Amino acid sequence: MTASSIPQLNVGLIGGGFMGKAHSLAYAAMPMFFWPAPAIPVRHTIAEVTDDLAAGAAARFGFQHSTGDWRRVIDDPNIHVVDIATPNNSHAEIAIAAAQAGKHILCEKPLAPTVAEARAMYEAVQAAGVVNMVAFNYRRTPAVALARKYIEEGRIGRVLSFRGTYLQDWSADPSGPLSWRFQKKIAGSGALGDIGTHVVDLARYLVGEISAVNAMMHTYIQERPLQSGGADKLGASDKTAGGPRGAVDVDDEVMTLLRFENGAVGSLEATRNAWGRNNHITFEIHGTEGTIHFNYERRDELQVYFTSDPSDARGLRTVYTGPAHPYGEGLWPIPALGIGYGETKIIEAYDFFKAITTGGAVSPNFEDGYKTELIADAIVRSAQERREVDVDTIGAARETASV
Amino acid sequence: MTASSIPQLNVGLIGGGFMGKAHSLAYAAMPMFFWPAPAIPVRHTIAEVTDDLAAGAAARFGFQHSTGDWRRVIDDPNIHVVDIATPNNSHAEIAIAAAQAGKHILCEKPLAPTVAEARAMYEAVQAAGVVNMVAFNYRRTPAVALARKYIEEGRIGRVLSFRGTYLQDWSADPSGPLSWRFQKKIAGSGALGDIGTHVVDLARYLVGEISAVNAMMHTYIQERPLQSGGADKLGASDKTAGGPRGAVDVDDEVMTLLRFENGAVGSLEATRNAWGRNNHITFEIHGTEGTIHFNYERRDELQVYFTSDPSDARGLRTVYTGPAHPYGEGLWPIPALGIGYGETKIIEAYDFFKAITTGGAVSPNFEDGYKTELIADAIVRSAQERREVDVDTIGAARETASV
Amino acid sequence: MTASSIPQLNVGLIGGGFMGKAHSLAYAAMPMFFWPAPAIPVRHTIAEVTDDLAAGAAARFGFQHSTGDWRRVIDDPNIHVVDIATPNNSHAEIAIAAAQAGKHILCEKPLAPTVAEARAMYEAVQAAGVVNMVAFNYRRTPAVALARKYIEEGRIGRVLSFRGTYLQDWSADPSGPLSWRFQKKIAGSGALGDIGTHVVDLARYLVGEISAVNAMMHTYIQERPLQSGGADKLGASDKTAGGPRGAVDVDDEVMTLLRFENGAVGSLEATRNAWGRNNHITFEIHGTEGTIHFNYERRDELQVYFTSDPSDARGLRTVYTGPAHPYGEGLWPIPALGIGYGETKIIEAYDFFKAITTGGAVSPNFEDGYKTELIADAIVRSAQERREVDVDTIGAARETASV
Amino acid sequence: MTASSIPQLNVGLIGGGFMGKAHSLAYAAMPMFFWPAPAIPVRHTIAEVTDDLAAGAAARFGFQHSTGDWRRVIDDPNIHVVDIATPNNSHAEIAIAAAQAGKHILCEKPLAPTVAEARAMYEAVQAAGVVNMVAFNYRRTPAVALARKYIEEGRIGRVLSFRGTYLQDWSADPSGPLSWRFQKKIAGSGALGDIGTHVVDLARYLVGEISAVNAMMHTYIQERPLQSGGADKLGASDKTAGGPRGAVDVDDEVMTLLRFENGAVGSLEATRNAWGRNNHITFEIHGTEGTIHFNYERRDELQVYFTSDPSDARGLRTVYTGPAHPYGEGLWPIPALGIGYGETKIIEAYDFFKAITTGGAVSPNFEDGYKTELIADAIVRSAQERREVDVDTIGAARETASV
Repeated sequence: MTASSIPQLNVGLIGGGFMGKAHSLAYAAMPMFFWPAPAIPVRHTIAEVTDDLAAGAAARFGFQHSTGDWRRVIDDPNIHVVDIATPNNSHAEIAIAAAQAGKHILCEKPLAPTVAEARAMYEAVQAAGVVNMVAFNYRRTPAVALARKYIEEGRIGRVLSFRGTYLQDWSADPSGPLSWRFQKKIAGSGALGDIGTHVVDLARYLVGEISAVNAMMHTYIQERPLQSGGADKLGASDKTAGGPRGAVDVDDEVMTLLRFENGAVGSLEATRNAWGRNNHITFEIHGTEGTIHFNYERRDELQVYFTSDPSDARGLRTVYTGPAHPYGEGLWPIPALGIGYGETKIIEAYDFFKAITTGGAVSPNFEDGYKTELIADAIVRSAQERREVDVDTIGAARETASV
Repeated sequence: MTASSIPQLNVGLIGGGFMGKAHSLAYAAMPMFFWPAPAIPVRHTIAEVTDDLAAGAAARFGFQHSTGDWRRVIDDPNIHVVDIATPNNSHAEIAIAAAQAGKHILCEKPLAPTVAEARAMYEAVQAAGVVNMVAFNYRRTPAVALARKYIEEGRIGRVLSFRGTYLQDWSADPSGPLSWRFQKKIAGSGALGDIGTHVVDLARYLVGEISAVNAMMHTYIQERPLQSGGADKLGASDKTAGGPRGAVDVDDEVMTLLRFENGAVGSLEATRNAWGRNNHITFEIHGTEGTIHFNYERRDELQVYFTSDPSDARGLRTVYTGPAHPYGEGLWPIPALGIGYGETKIIEAYDFFKAITTGGAVSPNFEDGYKTELIADAIVRSAQERREVDVDTIGAARETASV
Repeated sequence: MTASSIPQLNVGLIGGGFMGKAHSLAYAAMPMFFWPAPAIPVRHTIAEVTDDLAAGAAARFGFQHSTGDWRRVIDDPNIHVVDIATPNNSHAEIAIAAAQAGKHILCEKPLAPTVAEARAMYEAVQAAGVVNMVAFNYRRTPAVALARKYIEEGRIGRVLSFRGTYLQDWSADPSGPLSWRFQKKIAGSGALGDIGTHVVDLARYLVGEISAVNAMMHTYIQERPLQSGGADKLGASDKTAGGPRGAVDVDDEVMTLLRFENGAVGSLEATRNAWGRNNHITFEIHGTEGTIHFNYERRDELQVYFTSDPSDARGLRTVYTGPAHPYGEGLWPIPALGIGYGETKIIEAYDFFKAITTGGAVSPNFEDGYKTELIADAIVRSAQERREVDVDTIGAARETASV
Repeated sequence: MTASSIPQLNVGLIGGGFMGKAHSLAYAAMPMFFWPAPAIPVRHTIAEVTDDLAAGAAARFGFQHSTGDWRRVIDDPNIHVVDIATPNNSHAEIAIAAAQAGKHILCEKPLAPTVAEARAMYEAVQAAGVVNMVAFNYRRTPAVALARKYIEEGRIGRVLSFRGTYLQDWSADPSGPLSWRFQKKIAGSGALGDIGTHVVDLARYLVGEISAVNAMMHTYIQERPLQSGGADKLGASDKTAGGPRGAVDVDDEVMTLLRFENGAVGSLEATRNAWGRNNHITFEIHGTEGTIHFNYERRDELQVYFTSDPSDARGLRTVYTGPAHPYGEGLWPIPALGIGYGETKIIEAYDFFKAITTGGAVSPNFEDGYKTELIADAIVRSAQERREVDVDTIGAARETASV
């Protein structure tokens, strides 16, 4: 393939916050890393809530056009891809419109704040036949992909248990502002949807379908200072401690046990109150022939134990991912030069555009995102009812809803 | 206090296995470490199942006398302390006899394989007024005692959550022999009683009383080779793979959520199937002002985070315990010379003998051991019923039982 | 500053290999991270050794123009910045031409294979008055900048000692090809120049000027397969084990003691033979009031110990860099999202363009690069003479040379 | 072997401080761990500087007799073994007397403060034909013995380099008292003799004979408060900051490069000024086929890398030592129960008594201790002369001395 034969695809990005930045980086960098690239993403149009914000974002993120009205992105026939990087409660409206307009869609996670919206989004992309992906980017960490490879190849035997955590502290301080992430009407849920669903996605990716859950949920910090501006600055203290406060109506701590369809068991903890844990996404998987351990805070590394090692030299080894591992040829020439957050998004863009230009499947897609919402819904019910709850299947949920 | 004024107390030790060794070491070493010692434990008599085994154990462990009949230890008026280091199903009979004979008692954990036996043991020592202790020795790790000190002093604020694990792999290989630890009639339960109760003890020690649990239990390895001898060699493969096999009727994996009386929540996992985890006792405690993390495999260390640190220098710090920390003056002159398993037992002996000679309280005592059995019992019921189960209180259970 | 008032500066990049990729990423991403940006770098022209290679690199790295002749970059009056990412032996010729053409220059490290060339480059940029920088990018790791901040603020007291390492294994396998990095005529030296100079740069940045060295050098792998193509694929095995081999005439292991002008002492080890160490750049600095430890393989973290901590809570704390630390506001919203190699280059570009548009100083500049060559030269002489050798001062060396 | 056939050997221990405690523990515990034991050490007589101190030590450490005059230990025909646990400057006199009396000798390290004394001690035990050992106990850490096993079996190929450190902070505070460890007339040297020689011993044990050194030495803390009592409490602050001070005339920091006879190179750093490093004995060994890393502060673990691992699963693995490793059968039943400082001394006693009863060789013996003094002496000269210095051979030194 020569450079000139690589298709250029125009992207319309809706949302110029933290995720807008991460996705812009991915579009600029993807061909630099994966070459020949499946496509060259062109930063065509960026939308924000006002024209001014959009113009500033275009200058910063290198877009050719900008708009204060996201519907112009949908309506623009030159745009091939719509990227939704807005707060959760706007995902469904935008995604359904984009699907109906025949755009391929990359949507930030969680797919939607409610099961009903997630189902509608799933149905819309099914009907439209567009490529669709939900941005659970931590799957794209090379070490996580390596874990999946080991498991698929049977190198730790049959999986017996999964233990996952997502611990953060950017909002452990009650003086942090009441951003949209603490409001149910926008976010849908708190720690569960914001970070817990990442672990659900990892569990499904690595172990398989989850059939039942058994959960506890809490809201330890029950009010926060009202925010002066609209920005979502994670972790920033508003320094307006004396000002008016509003109620937090989402969870900040969720723990659940997991039952997988294949007989494995597991647990998940997601909390916003873990001082000293920044982006502490971990999992440990025990198999009949080995163990895998991962900690995103040290994301260049995967720890793995094989029973096939010599009896006097068994132990968890620390594998630094690099060219010998998934996605490695496209990243950096040697291990430990450094996988950052950006790389997870660059790989995500690579897989997404590859699916568009080659017609292959991509995951996690909206079906996965919808399934994750069903699991999150079961977690909420389990916590309310203090008992184990079966996860609705996609079909069953749809039927129930249509009655 | 001069050396000559230190009382000498005669110990009768029942059981010459791994625990017999650990306790013998503790008796020999305790005065070397803690001086002036509260008492000098005299290794008076050791009992094993035969006279020959007992004689060998006496030579090895430095006891003056030996016997193949544990009742002779109870009957000997010269013996002040009875140390029970036998399989779980013999604890109650021996302990009740010892209490009735007025001996002070140190009993290995778990207290008993059933709630009923644990209650009877508790009642016996209450009635006899003897000093009693159950050997949940991991409390005695200096770093664990330091965690308790930090919490008591409010240095991590109010505790919000506890996450504890006890992961092992010595029996992850199905070719390991069917020792008593895999038989319900002797052990009572599997991973739950053998290792999970250690975590229950730590949770109660560090956070407080547990009021409800929500659990899953599994038995992944369902049969094992019948054992040729009677010994309990942890982790030894019997190399008789072709021989006859027997059923494992205890759990090898337990996961539970925890609800504490003070409003904190938690989780616990104990498994025998964690390849690469040897004696992986960990806990992480999140408080409103900090975090504590501990891993017994690196037991010299405690990790702690304080929100009071300067904003540009916050992080989990690794404190190596030493003279500045609990029990430190008695141990080694500088940190990281090395806390081993023996030190946990030496400290245990120190606290136990101090309680005998000074009349002070000691914990965990049989009441604690009984409470732990009530929690274990609730875990079993919760796993069976797939719902959250309240833990019986000591009083309620007694009443129920007497109906 | 509005977006429209930010100057756009045209970059001519010479070299489309690993470093070309890293620098292209930096130019695309810098304004996304640091906004308002000091300048928007425009990827104007890329040069490679042939027109075809250059055209492919332009497509991949997003440059507007390409050329097979690097002199066209120098001659183009529209180009403001020349970026030199070629093998070491071409740095001087290109840099001197660029300086004479009045271009600002970013040059990959080491500055040059010989002291004489480094001096000539330094003199050229001095004469031209252009902004100049040598790309010792590891200084730009936020955790390293944080270490410098702690030291400057006196938080670990007076520095007593520095111990630095750079350990790699991509070329520990003797079957790896004889790339230019193993040839003295191109590279100048081996482990010393390629990786050891990074540690020299860190030592100077963090502790101060080095006055004397005392070294040993070795070449353990003395021949390698001749390379089929011209590419420099770090770590790739050529799979032509049976083919002809050529001599390695540079070192693969260097160890030296260091004496600093301020009285501190230190050591440095750089080796290409450290199996399991990928990009293991570490330093440990002992001060009168604390300690700092860094390991690039876990580059999100800095470990620091302060004697001012409470006596029962002292230990090396692990600080994850983020918004509260140097460059943090421009990077990711919370710590541990992930600093990768790209971020070090993005920060490097930020500081470089800031120096261009604001006229401020930037380091490490060519004077620093030249000084580092003088130190490397002293290391070579010390190893040959098996004794401590004083480092030439910049002035002295020039005089000697002019005699 | 039946218990009754195990010989009982009477020990006379000279010195009741930290080392007296550690050795007493070893004598009590050795048969408990290694059974059948090569001998049962009987704690016969302990000597201290006064009768009172000796009587207290006997009560604490479980000795049958005590004396304020060490010569009575030498003169007692019932004593088989003399254990020298006194400050360095008394080693020679006691050891030579003990050898002449035909006692087997275990002597604390370093062997002596001067080369001349070390040589005299070596010659004395040679002449007497007694079993002799110098207590470089860190060799006995199971993980260190495992490292030696890997190297001997060729599992990391040919050794290329060794990097060892011994970092401490118990005396990093200038207000710590001027104990004998800071006085040349008693200790001989400072960090070099006290801790650096441990690393020399490890280097010789693991890699081989050292032929040349190239060193720097410093004394950063040049005076300390005069000590009120005679005790050597490591790390204790004397709280007499205002009192009179005395000069420190030994080094507190030493760095040296090492050249081994087999062609390997290495480095060594020992410092007393490393805040946050407690007993930080580390080594990293690079071989042609792998790497070994050890840190005594996590002494249950050995990290090892093998090039023979699959290409997608290479990494340093963390082996927790246990029954599958050297000395493991005698220690604890599973890995990570915990190796403490005591275990290194228990193993030391085991090997020492085995040599006595079986007539086998034991190391490190006085020849090793003497060799280590020759290396230390070369380090001092190298630091003074600022050049590489060859280590004297044992024969050469003797000849020179006799001229």
